[in-house]
Amino acid sequence: MDERSYTVAELARYVGGEVLGEATLCISGLNRIEYAAPGELTFIHHIRYARFLPHTRATCILIPPQLEAVPREGQAFIRVADPYRAFVALMPLFVPNNEPPWGLRHPTALIDPSATVAPTAIVNAYCVVGARCVIEDRVILHPFVVLYEDVTVGEGSILHAGVVCYPRTVIGKRCLIHAGVVLGADGFGFWESHAGQLEKIPHVGNVVLEDEVELGANTTVDRSLAGSTRIGRGSKLDNLVHVAHNVTIDEHTAIAAQVGISGSVRLGKRNRIGGQVGMVGHITTGDDVIVEAKSGVSKSLSGPGRYFGIPAQEHYRALRQEAAVRQLPELLREIHQLRRQLDELRQYVALLEHTWRQHG
Amino acid sequence: MDERSYTVAELARYVGGEVLGEATLCISGLNRIEYAAPGELTFIHHIRYARFLPHTRATCILIPPQLEAVPREGQAFIRVADPYRAFVALMPLFVPNNEPPWGLRHPTALIDPSATVAPTAIVNAYCVVGARCVIEDRVILHPFVVLYEDVTVGEGSILHAGVVCYPRTVIGKRCLIHAGVVLGADGFGFWESHAGQLEKIPHVGNVVLEDEVELGANTTVDRSLAGSTRIGRGSKLDNLVHVAHNVTIDEHTAIAAQVGISGSVRLGKRNRIGGQVGMVGHITTGDDVIVEAKSGVSKSLSGPGRYFGIPAQEHYRALRQEAAVRQLPELLREIHQLRRQLDELRQYVALLEHTWRQHG
Amino acid sequence: MDERSYTVAELARYVGGEVLGEATLCISGLNRIEYAAPGELTFIHHIRYARFLPHTRATCILIPPQLEAVPREGQAFIRVADPYRAFVALMPLFVPNNEPPWGLRHPTALIDPSATVAPTAIVNAYCVVGARCVIEDRVILHPFVVLYEDVTVGEGSILHAGVVCYPRTVIGKRCLIHAGVVLGADGFGFWESHAGQLEKIPHVGNVVLEDEVELGANTTVDRSLAGSTRIGRGSKLDNLVHVAHNVTIDEHTAIAAQVGISGSVRLGKRNRIGGQVGMVGHITTGDDVIVEAKSGVSKSLSGPGRYFGIPAQEHYRALRQEAAVRQLPELLREIHQLRRQLDELRQYVALLEHTWRQHG
Repeated sequence: MDERSYTVAELARYVGGEVLGEATLCISGLNRIEYAAPGELTFIHHIRYARFLPHTRATCILIPPQLEAVPREGQAFIRVADPYRAFVALMPLFVPNNEPPWGLRHPTALIDPSATVAPTAIVNAYCVVGARCVIEDRVILHPFVVLYEDVTVGEGSILHAGVVCYPRTVIGKRCLIHAGVVLGADGFGFWESHAGQLEKIPHVGNVVLEDEVELGANTTVDRSLAGSTRIGRGSKLDNLVHVAHNVTIDEHTAIAAQVGISGSVRLGKRNRIGGQVGMVGHITTGDDVIVEAKSGVSKSLSGPGRYFGIPAQEHYRALRQEAAVRQLPELLREIHQLRRQLDELRQYVALLEHTWRQHG
Repeated sequence: MDERSYTVAELARYVGGEVLGEATLCISGLNRIEYAAPGELTFIHHIRYARFLPHTRATCILIPPQLEAVPREGQAFIRVADPYRAFVALMPLFVPNNEPPWGLRHPTALIDPSATVAPTAIVNAYCVVGARCVIEDRVILHPFVVLYEDVTVGEGSILHAGVVCYPRTVIGKRCLIHAGVVLGADGFGFWESHAGQLEKIPHVGNVVLEDEVELGANTTVDRSLAGSTRIGRGSKLDNLVHVAHNVTIDEHTAIAAQVGISGSVRLGKRNRIGGQVGMVGHITTGDDVIVEAKSGVSKSLSGPGRYFGIPAQEHYRALRQEAAVRQLPELLREIHQLRRQLDELRQYVALLEHTWRQHG
Repeated sequence: MDERSYTVAELARYVGGEVLGEATLCISGLNRIEYAAPGELTFIHHIRYARFLPHTRATCILIPPQLEAVPREGQAFIRVADPYRAFVALMPLFVPNNEPPWGLRHPTALIDPSATVAPTAIVNAYCVVGARCVIEDRVILHPFVVLYEDVTVGEGSILHAGVVCYPRTVIGKRCLIHAGVVLGADGFGFWESHAGQLEKIPHVGNVVLEDEVELGANTTVDRSLAGSTRIGRGSKLDNLVHVAHNVTIDEHTAIAAQVGISGSVRLGKRNRIGGQVGMVGHITTGDDVIVEAKSGVSKSLSGPGRYFGIPAQEHYRALRQEAAVRQLPELLREIHQLRRQLDELRQYVALLEHTWRQHG
């Protein structure tokens, strides 16, 4: 796709590293160590991955300072303080970063006359922008983004193909919303009649994303009963996450894929929520709470702290319990043995007494 | 977004409540108690939330009859029998409820000439309506709805942006289908060859939603092998739910987010299925079954009843088991102690016998 | 929808079966046994479902060789070696299989001039095909498919409505991608600053699907840091599955709905992963590994083998542990009893000794 190539010496200079081996070798791409082909550069994140070194077909490898190794013929190493960071720093050299067509209004985009679109914003093919929407500078709407009425998208935010924002959604600055995300659908709230029928509770609130929020593909965030479902500044959600109505997520929190957060939950700052975790409604977490993958959180968690299990409890306690459960089958045997030995002893004592009384 | 405002006295009259404090204060919006700002009205659902009262910035609060409290200056209470219901009843006063443009056929909508669209139905921008589809009165298709061939959408149903209906899908009356829902994709059925290859089993059935069904954002319902995957009247499914081929869900059942229901399952009436529950294939549930969040249902459940766990069992039994597991680490200590004490006693008895024999 | 009908004799001849009862009855549709109506044909997969036979309203039933039964009046059986296979073989007779409009370029489809579209490929309404994309023969793009730049779709693949492919996605031949699938969104990778802020790690890799891969509705596959996230030939993923960055799935593996596979996992050949399973990052599975639904896999699994649990362990071990946990509440009672009996025995021995010493 792109024809750029660089010598090992050029790349070493770019990342401030030291060359081992042939500095004039030519590099035209990046890859992970298992998959790298000749002509590509890769990296060893940590000395414990040194075992991959003899097998890689990469022409150049970024290595950490501690690693003692000598490149094969036709291969070079670049020694740097942090090979992973250096690898990422090299990415822009290899990936074409075309300037987006700032100011584009694709002729097929339908923009309501009452909407305000900043001059540099990009509105791609087949976007639908509803009444009174506000789209700030350097926003990119990819094809088929649908903004219902009164939606605001802050400066520099990117909405990928097919994102849907229900009325009154507010997206902050520099947010990144992946394809298929749905913001602001009705909260799942019903009254139950005596006959068990479900009567809909209307939701007049909205969804607010603060600045620098990232949402993964096909994630859904429901709007609030009143007020806002809110995701705090710098928080990142992975794919297929469900955030229910009235939830508040504080800043710099990371939520892995397929997590489900029930209504009115409040998460603290810098939480780290593992994949497929579920949380019941109306609970809170403190700051710096870590919940391990697959947990089911049934009550509020204080922070800082690390939690695991269904129901979630302190991590060390969950591990101890898990270890105990693993011993259970042996425990059963042990208890049957105890029971037998106790019975034997009881009989023995009875026999002893009997003998004694006879002699007595 | 809208400029309507009302006095506390007007709102109290509307909900049949009694004013405490200044009846002439002006209210222009609704919010939840933690977030309400001056000029807004909120509510206290139950007397146990009275602790929020001193902290709210709301100008007006709907309170339950039992609550004894006096409004601050610049604040008013409205006492009503059911504050939550009253709050919801007030919503239409504050949210503009524009009459939809009945009869709209957006010029970009592609409607197959063989389709039948009722005069009052709305077909928004970029909808694609396939051959022989039938769209009844007051249906609203939001932008980018795709109906493949032979789809029927009943009177008054609303399909949000990007909903996709595969061929022969039938949607009843007054259904509400949120953005990103996919109805009628192929059931996940394969034959396995001796070499472990997967050979596709075609699915010629369809999906049928009865009247007043609601489906949350990005939920998927697969079509049946033959006949119909069916969701019963008045049932409500939350976001990101998976309903497999051949499933039948009876009426007035509620299913929370991220639940997965495997092939050929049959759910009874008025079931309440918690978030992230999974069900294996080919099982049934009775009427009025409750399954708690995160459960894994591996066999049929009789109703009425409440179930929990992986695998799901009667709720009281699951709780008892959970409590027992929590005691396990102590139990281990207890058993080691028992073992030691038993050994000591055994030695003691041996010593006793030895002493006795010597004396005997 | 279609008017074709056949006599029982014709259908029996088609599947090589033997007619029991009236061979001249007329059949115009297929259905499952619980739902079949008069005029429809159904099947009994196995002799253990014979209990459904007296209740079905179907006019014709495919039955297995072992089943001894006599059709009612107005009903016929067709005895065949494998009724399920025979049922599926009959499907094409009843379902219209219209020839697709090979070569269609819908006038609303936006195809970049630098893209290559094979003559027989179908590009439906409102598709967006980016720069340098390659679409091979007999590919079908349903409405609203979005291909970003440099996407390749192999011969005979079908992309349903609303599928989104990020740049550089490669789809093999004869793949089937259901509606709402997102391929190639950013991997969920961040650096954490000392203050707990999350700094984005760019991902310059892509997603590669080999031939005959099938992906269910709203499934998401993220692109790799560098190199490719790869799904092997003939593998099938159900709805709402999450495949993270850098994952490699080998050939002929089946993954049920709502499974989540974390970053850099490598799955072997012919794995069978049950619904809602989660896997932590950087682990591997061998060939022919089966993971039961709901499991949480926290370390690598060797194959062939069957695993279950949170954390996943050998299936037999997990079952033994589960059985032990179910006995726990009784175990608690048992231990209390042991404790009491031991205390009683200890007291009894003390009393015995006391008596003996008095007599001694």
